[in-house]
Amino acid sequence: MTEKLSGFSRRDLLAMVGKVAGGAAMYQAMSSLGLAQESNYTGPIKLQGAPMGASVLILGAGIAGLVAALELRQAGYRVQVLEYNPVAGGRCWTLRGGDEYTELGGFRQQCGFDKGQYVNPGPWRIPYHHHAMLDYCKRLGVTLEPFVQINYNAYLHSSKAYQGKPQRFREVQSDYQGHIAELFAKCVRSEQLDAALTKEDLERLLESLKNWGALDGEYRYRKSGQSSSHRGYDVDDGGGLAPAGELSQPLEFAELLQSRLWTGIAAGQGYHLHPAIFQPVGGMDNIAQAFAREVGSLIRYNTRVFKIDQNDKGVTVNYTNRRDGSSGSAKADWCICTLPVSILSQLDLNVSAKLKSAIDALPYHASLKAGLQFKRRFWEEDERIYGGITYTDLPLSTIAYPNHGCNMGGKGVLLGAYMFGGNAYKYSAMDPAQRLQEIVAMGAQIHPQYPAEFENGITVGWHRVPWANGCFGAWTSQKRAQYYDDMCQMDGRIVLAGEHVSRIPAWQEGAALSALDVCERLHRRALAA
Amino acid sequence: MTEKLSGFSRRDLLAMVGKVAGGAAMYQAMSSLGLAQESNYTGPIKLQGAPMGASVLILGAGIAGLVAALELRQAGYRVQVLEYNPVAGGRCWTLRGGDEYTELGGFRQQCGFDKGQYVNPGPWRIPYHHHAMLDYCKRLGVTLEPFVQINYNAYLHSSKAYQGKPQRFREVQSDYQGHIAELFAKCVRSEQLDAALTKEDLERLLESLKNWGALDGEYRYRKSGQSSSHRGYDVDDGGGLAPAGELSQPLEFAELLQSRLWTGIAAGQGYHLHPAIFQPVGGMDNIAQAFAREVGSLIRYNTRVFKIDQNDKGVTVNYTNRRDGSSGSAKADWCICTLPVSILSQLDLNVSAKLKSAIDALPYHASLKAGLQFKRRFWEEDERIYGGITYTDLPLSTIAYPNHGCNMGGKGVLLGAYMFGGNAYKYSAMDPAQRLQEIVAMGAQIHPQYPAEFENGITVGWHRVPWANGCFGAWTSQKRAQYYDDMCQMDGRIVLAGEHVSRIPAWQEGAALSALDVCERLHRRALAA
Repeated sequence: MTEKLSGFSRRDLLAMVGKVAGGAAMYQAMSSLGLAQESNYTGPIKLQGAPMGASVLILGAGIAGLVAALELRQAGYRVQVLEYNPVAGGRCWTLRGGDEYTELGGFRQQCGFDKGQYVNPGPWRIPYHHHAMLDYCKRLGVTLEPFVQINYNAYLHSSKAYQGKPQRFREVQSDYQGHIAELFAKCVRSEQLDAALTKEDLERLLESLKNWGALDGEYRYRKSGQSSSHRGYDVDDGGGLAPAGELSQPLEFAELLQSRLWTGIAAGQGYHLHPAIFQPVGGMDNIAQAFAREVGSLIRYNTRVFKIDQNDKGVTVNYTNRRDGSSGSAKADWCICTLPVSILSQLDLNVSAKLKSAIDALPYHASLKAGLQFKRRFWEEDERIYGGITYTDLPLSTIAYPNHGCNMGGKGVLLGAYMFGGNAYKYSAMDPAQRLQEIVAMGAQIHPQYPAEFENGITVGWHRVPWANGCFGAWTSQKRAQYYDDMCQMDGRIVLAGEHVSRIPAWQEGAALSALDVCERLHRRALAA
Repeated sequence: MTEKLSGFSRRDLLAMVGKVAGGAAMYQAMSSLGLAQESNYTGPIKLQGAPMGASVLILGAGIAGLVAALELRQAGYRVQVLEYNPVAGGRCWTLRGGDEYTELGGFRQQCGFDKGQYVNPGPWRIPYHHHAMLDYCKRLGVTLEPFVQINYNAYLHSSKAYQGKPQRFREVQSDYQGHIAELFAKCVRSEQLDAALTKEDLERLLESLKNWGALDGEYRYRKSGQSSSHRGYDVDDGGGLAPAGELSQPLEFAELLQSRLWTGIAAGQGYHLHPAIFQPVGGMDNIAQAFAREVGSLIRYNTRVFKIDQNDKGVTVNYTNRRDGSSGSAKADWCICTLPVSILSQLDLNVSAKLKSAIDALPYHASLKAGLQFKRRFWEEDERIYGGITYTDLPLSTIAYPNHGCNMGGKGVLLGAYMFGGNAYKYSAMDPAQRLQEIVAMGAQIHPQYPAEFENGITVGWHRVPWANGCFGAWTSQKRAQYYDDMCQMDGRIVLAGEHVSRIPAWQEGAALSALDVCERLHRRALAA
C-alpha cells in the first residue's frame, strides 16, 4: 500500500479505525478473527530431507496417490506410482463424448455426449471448508466455479403426494417455515411456552417469527403479500400498464407434513453442502489432470497389482500389464497403498493380521449415477431451473442440472440419477440400455419433456467399477471404534491412504488429508530408520 | 431424437414412461407442467409493420431505452436515442480501472482498480425469474455466472451483540432454527398445540422438527453431532491418525434473539434474491454494451435534454451537446422518455397536468455503494468466505465479496458499502476520500485486515449522480394508487418508460418490462393514427 490513498494517508486511516471501532474492540477483533482454523489442514506440508536414495511405491493414482506422489517427490523421495487405469484420477473422474467404459460383467458403454458436455460419475463438488482440495486447486491452477447446491426454483417431488406433481423448493421451504412460525407464535402468545425467556425476549421472538416466517399482521401464514414475497407469486408483477402480480396460495400444512417434502429442505443445510460450494470448470478430472502434469512421469499406467509383499528391507509389488498381459514387479523402501480396500481385500497381501482384519471388515456403499444428454435445456427454457438439484422419492433420487453454461441455450447433460443402497444394486443389475430406459421413464414423471428431448446417456454403478468394486467405505461408529486405528497404522513398510482411511469418507478431502497424514508419518519413520 | 437410443427404441421408451408413471399421471404431469408462466414476459415481442416513415425519439439509453430502441427499430420505426453519458447503460453501469466519475458538486473520482477488477454501482444481480433480462442476455450473447447470494460462511454482524464479533451465517441460521424447533417440539409434546392436526400429523411434525432443527434424540438443540452437522464444527474431521473433529457450541437463544442477527437469515429468503441468481461475467454493463452493439448507431451520446415539446403532429426535443456546448433539436412522431423523473421533473416539459403531477409526486431513494480494492483476497485466504454477502448493523450495511475468480489468489474488489436512506445522505455529503476512510474504518470492525490490505476505492452516492439524482423511484402503495396509472398513460405523443414506470422498481427487469409494454402500446397507437 502506498502511503497516499486517494487523498488520505495510512496514518489517517489507522486513527479512524481506532476512533470508529475503539482500540480494545479492534484488538479483540484482530485476535479472535484472522486465521480461525476449522480444518486439520494447516497449509501445504513442507517435508524436507528424505534419506539419500529412499524410495516410495504408491499404489493407485487417485487423489490420495497423487497428493502423496507430489509431496514425497518434493521431499526428495524416489517415487513410483502404479495405476490400473490409462489415466490418473481414480474416482476423480469425468466422462465426455468418445470415452469408453467397461464394467465388471463386460457391459461396455461409449459416451455419446456432444463436445463440452460431461458428467462426473464420482465426486462432483468441493465445499468451502475442504481446505486441502481448494489449496491443491489453487497451487495447480484448477479453475473453480460455483456449484448451485440450493436452487429455490428446483423441485421437491414425491410420487405419493400432490398427485405426483413436483413442488418448487421455494414453496415447500417458505410454507414449512411459515406454518411453523404461525403455530409456534400461537403457543408463545397464549403464554404456554416453557422457556427461560424474559417478556422482552418473547416480544423479540414474536417479531422474529413474523419476519422469518412471512406472517401477516395477525401472525398468520396465509395467502398474503408477506407469504408471496417468500414463496413467489402466481403471476409476477409487470411493467407499465401490464397487470399487477397475483399472490400465490400456500400449501396446506397437514398435506405438506404428509408429503414428507420437508426432508428436502434440510438437504442443503448440512455443513458439507453449505454454499459457497464449487466444481472445477469443465469436469472434476481437471484436478487429476493438473496433478498428472506435475507427477505424471512417475506413474506407470494400465498396471494391475496382484501381490504386495514386504520384509524388513522393503516392499515388492507384482503386477500385470493390462495392455500386453506381461508381468512385472516394482520395489521400494516404503509403500503407500491407496487402493480401495474392496479391491485390496482380494489381493495377495503381506500385512499383519490386525491390518488384514480391518481391510476385510470394511464394506463399501453402492451407488449409481447416470448422465443424460438432452437436445435442449428444457429445464431452463420451460421451467426456469438454472442449475441446482431436484430431490424425489423415486429410485433415481436426484436430478442435478448443469451449473455451467446457463441461459446460453443448446444441449445439456443432467445428472439423471444418483442412487444408493438397494436401488443402486437393482438398477446396476440391468444392462446399461435398460437402466437408461428406466431412468428416463422415471424422470418423465418430473420432467414430461424427457421422452421427446432425450438423446443419449451413460451410467456408472460403482460396485461394478472394476478398479473400485464400490463407491466409498461404509464406516459405522462401531466399525470405526474397532478397526479405524488399525487401518491407519503403518504396518512394517506399508501404510494405507484414501477416503476410507479418513474421517471424511466419500469426499476427496478425506483422501487428501489421509495422504498428507501418511506422508508425514512415513517421513518421520524413514528419517528414524 | 434418432429412433435408436443406445440400445432401446423410442417406442420402448414411451411404453416405459406409461408403465412407470401411469398414463393418467403422465397426462396430468404434462399438462400441469411445461410452460408454467410466472412472468408478464411471454417471450420476445414481435411488432411488425410500422407505418411508413414513422419515427420514435427515445430519451435515455439505459435498459428501458435500449430495449425500446431494439424492438422498435426491428418493427420498422426510424429510431433516434439521446443519451447524456458518453456510453450506453445508464444505471446499468460498471466502474473499472481508469474510469472517471464526476458527481454533482464537482467531486471527481478516478477508479484505481487493477485490470480485471470492477464494481457495479447500480444493479448487480439478475434473478432467475427476471425473464426479460435473461432473454435479452441470451439473445445478445451476454455470458452469466452464478451470483452467490447466500454464503453460509459469510458473517452476520451486530456492533451491539457478541462484543462486536461477527457470527457465521451458518451458525445463526442453524441455531435460530434449532432453538425454535426445540421449543416448538416441547409445545407439541405437551399437547398444548392449538392446531387442526391429527395425531399422525403431529408425529410427522415432531419428526420433521427433529430433522430440520438438528435436534438430538430428546428433541433438544444442544451441542451434539446433530447440531454440529448443521452449524459446523470447532475443528473439522481429519484424515488418517489426525484428530477427529470437535463439536461446536450453539449460541444461546436469548442472546441470539437480542442480537437481532436473525434479521439476516430472512435476507436471502425473499423471492427477488432466491438462488439461482446471476451476474454478467465481467460486469453488469456488458449487457448495455451488448445492446449498444445492436443499436449504438442510433444513439447520440453526450446529449443533455432540456426541453420536451409536443403538438398533434409530433415531438420536439431540445438539447445541449455536452462536449462543445452547442444546442440542437430532434423531432419525431413519438417520444419514449426513460429519464428518471427525478431529472424529468426539472425539465421544460409539455405534458398534461395529470402526468406532470405524477412526475412531480415520485421521490427517489438515496443509496451509496463503495468498491474497495484490496491487495489480497484475505476474506478467502484467512476467513474462507468465497463470494456472497455479509450483513451488518453498521452504516455500511453490506459487504459483498467477489463471486468470480474465487480461490485463484491475487487482488480483489469488495462491495464495501451499500447504504440506503439517512446513511446514504450522510456519507454522500462527505468528500470521496473521507467516505472511503470512514467505510474502511467501519469495515475493519468486521475484517481487521482492512487497514493493512486496502489499496484504493471509489464511491457512488446515487442522489449525486448528475443524470439520475437518485437511485430508484420510491413508490408507496398510496402513491401508486394515486399516480401510477397516470404516469403510465400515453400523453399525446409522449410516454414514459423505466423502472419507475413498473411494479418492479429498482430492478432492470422493471425497466425492460416497462419498455416492452410501452412499445406495444405505442405501436398500436401509431397503427391507429
